[in-house]
Amino acid sequence: MNSTTQLRVRYVETDAMGIVHHASYVAWLELGRTELLRELGMSYREWEKAGVHLAVGEVHLKYRAPSYFDDLVTVHTQVTEAARRRVGFAYRIERDGVLLAEASTVHMVTGADGKARVLPDEFLNLFKP
Amino acid sequence: MNSTTQLRVRYVETDAMGIVHHASYVAWLELGRTELLRELGMSYREWEKAGVHLAVGEVHLKYRAPSYFDDLVTVHTQVTEAARRRVGFAYRIERDGVLLAEASTVHMVTGADGKARVLPDEFLNLFKP
Amino acid sequence: MNSTTQLRVRYVETDAMGIVHHASYVAWLELGRTELLRELGMSYREWEKAGVHLAVGEVHLKYRAPSYFDDLVTVHTQVTEAARRRVGFAYRIERDGVLLAEASTVHMVTGADGKARVLPDEFLNLFKP
Amino acid sequence: MNSTTQLRVRYVETDAMGIVHHASYVAWLELGRTELLRELGMSYREWEKAGVHLAVGEVHLKYRAPSYFDDLVTVHTQVTEAARRRVGFAYRIERDGVLLAEASTVHMVTGADGKARVLPDEFLNLFKP
Repeated sequence: MNSTTQLRVRYVETDAMGIVHHASYVAWLELGRTELLRELGMSYREWEKAGVHLAVGEVHLKYRAPSYFDDLVTVHTQVTEAARRRVGFAYRIERDGVLLAEASTVHMVTGADGKARVLPDEFLNLFKP
Repeated sequence: MNSTTQLRVRYVETDAMGIVHHASYVAWLELGRTELLRELGMSYREWEKAGVHLAVGEVHLKYRAPSYFDDLVTVHTQVTEAARRRVGFAYRIERDGVLLAEASTVHMVTGADGKARVLPDEFLNLFKP
Repeated sequence: MNSTTQLRVRYVETDAMGIVHHASYVAWLELGRTELLRELGMSYREWEKAGVHLAVGEVHLKYRAPSYFDDLVTVHTQVTEAARRRVGFAYRIERDGVLLAEASTVHMVTGADGKARVLPDEFLNLFKP
Repeated sequence: MNSTTQLRVRYVETDAMGIVHHASYVAWLELGRTELLRELGMSYREWEKAGVHLAVGEVHLKYRAPSYFDDLVTVHTQVTEAARRRVGFAYRIERDGVLLAEASTVHMVTGADGKARVLPDEFLNLFKP
């Protein structure tokens, strides 16, 4: 129910302050939950092929320390909620044990058409211990 | 103390769901507060030239409806807090009166080195009615 | 057969060199040809609704001078080629008359499935004087 | 004088065509040459700390086949030119041996101020066999 992903900061992710732009972290959260879903047994690509999408309903990010080009960053992701209509994740982003950001996201279960649907058992069971 | 900005959705801002990717909205918030600061009398470029930066400390986004390539989107931005060490903004993102997203950001006042500093009177006064 | 578009440089488009990141210009080319197509009489959104896509086959960019956050940039776009299977554009990106970049792109005509198709007369005629 | 880097396609890198947006490849080229420089003995972060920058002067990309979310993509990068004032790279981007794109970039040697400078021997020697 939790996963650890590493990434190397790209130059394109930095901004004129000389640090990583705050929007880049949103993509890192996506990486974190993509790897968590893969480890739970079905990649998000397979989710989508099965017509089950996790539309982002909410993003909350708190920035604690800046990160820089070429940093090796770790994203810790965990499931905080997994219900028929909503799935939630929490994240800690770190570099060498230093907390860079904390975050959470909430997702609505939808079909390929973006309309709400119910999470099939097969998918709900992925979140069961 | 509030501002309205329009933008046209770029193709690069969409994703494989056929809608605007949720990270794109973070850049739109930045556009909204950039234009609000300009209307308050000093552009953020001038802020930076004077050595005063608003580092992003927190971003909170709630997505209400999807947006699409080529949509004409409106960002309503208002100041929610303006103190010596923190400035806050709230946002409503709409298309033709339909609410697409609500958001808030909190910013720390820093120097060009990213270290906390106090907002000079000249800047604090910009936020006074 | 040519069009002029203005844009304001976003903070997110800059990088740690303090200038606009070179990948940001690729999105500006897209803006330029989107507006050119609109002015020719059918927006690219309408193209896509009709099942006609212009897949990017080639991008060539030469950078002449840096641009900065909050610059007001002009993209001059012109059609260089419009045939049944290929469409080409050339671009000049300027700020206050200073050349920032020159570029060209080549596009393949495809359907929504990404497979090559022939440009219908209705679309080909848009490019006729 | 050549390097191979792997990356996993991010959802944020896709667009409404359902494929990777063409601008995303520009960031991948950057990844490729960053890893190549690291393997040559000095990371680009160290280059910048020493006041030596490789400003992008030209980018040329030819797209051969689409890529998709979650693809495992390989970037092959090689040095094509290394002189006192210019450095050049060529790239092949592949997935499972299928060519996705070919590219080349040319870079000007500059200081942190963006002004042309000459590549010090210490750096030029990195490119010698």
